[in-house]
Amino acid sequence: METFFRYNWQVREEWYRWCEDVPGEELLRVRTGGIGGILHTLFHIVDVEWSWIQVLQGKQDFQESFDGYNSLEKVRKLDADFRQDVKTFVQAWDSSMETRPFYDPKPDGTVYIDAWGEVMRHTIAHQIHHIGQLSIWSREIGKQPVSPNLIGRGLIKPLVAK
Amino acid sequence: METFFRYNWQVREEWYRWCEDVPGEELLRVRTGGIGGILHTLFHIVDVEWSWIQVLQGKQDFQESFDGYNSLEKVRKLDADFRQDVKTFVQAWDSSMETRPFYDPKPDGTVYIDAWGEVMRHTIAHQIHHIGQLSIWSREIGKQPVSPNLIGRGLIKPLVAK
Repeated sequence: METFFRYNWQVREEWYRWCEDVPGEELLRVRTGGIGGILHTLFHIVDVEWSWIQVLQGKQDFQESFDGYNSLEKVRKLDADFRQDVKTFVQAWDSSMETRPFYDPKPDGTVYIDAWGEVMRHTIAHQIHHIGQLSIWSREIGKQPVSPNLIGRGLIKPLVAK
Repeated sequence: METFFRYNWQVREEWYRWCEDVPGEELLRVRTGGIGGILHTLFHIVDVEWSWIQVLQGKQDFQESFDGYNSLEKVRKLDADFRQDVKTFVQAWDSSMETRPFYDPKPDGTVYIDAWGEVMRHTIAHQIHHIGQLSIWSREIGKQPVSPNLIGRGLIKPLVAK
């Protein structure tokens, strides 16, 4: 589980660096599909990752809108503020948590039950999906996107015979 | 590991069904970013998933180009032909395979070593990333994309106290 989170954190850092060379108006421009903009997408990823980890622990999710975080600096700061909470939770993950039920009551009274293992994988896939969208918008503004490759990052050390 | 593959297979089936209502020229149209088109992307996902599983087993990867598979029917058939190989490998996955080394020699003589666990996660992330791109192109042609949600699919059964 942790490997995917470390991958997502690395990729996010690389997108922040990518953003440094892009004019602010391009980062904020409203685009077709997804969450509708580059920086807004990065904000949304940070929001959703932290929020799921919070609600699994019975805590309040993130309630603020992008309006208060519409600069690269602010999104990076939010991400840094949230990261330790997520890291602590992910590092304490063990297989007994996979099937633990998360009760998700809806306004109409229905209660959905998701396994914690599903919620964690949902959070992982959520970022990767949105990063795919950034890669399209990146090409639209004529810039090479960040590599989405998971291999080659040294995330798992292979066991090589001596 | 298997949960993510089952997720990817479900999502792929849903995109094939999504394609059924889209004119062939839209599926084949060359687009900005990614692999450059909707059906080509689905072909590429199928190719890459099977190829990685093959090379981990020391077998030949897929060498054919999209030219021979440029219809929904042909991509679906290719996917069906490959699926059992991938499924068998994924279902036999165990944690001892995580750090097994995969030797990847490059034309310049360099040999990269990736852990099998990285290769498997790379394959998973590869599809999710490209599906994110499809979601943008879907909106561009005015159609709602397939839901990328991983929760709500019954992929892991929560352990609910009676």
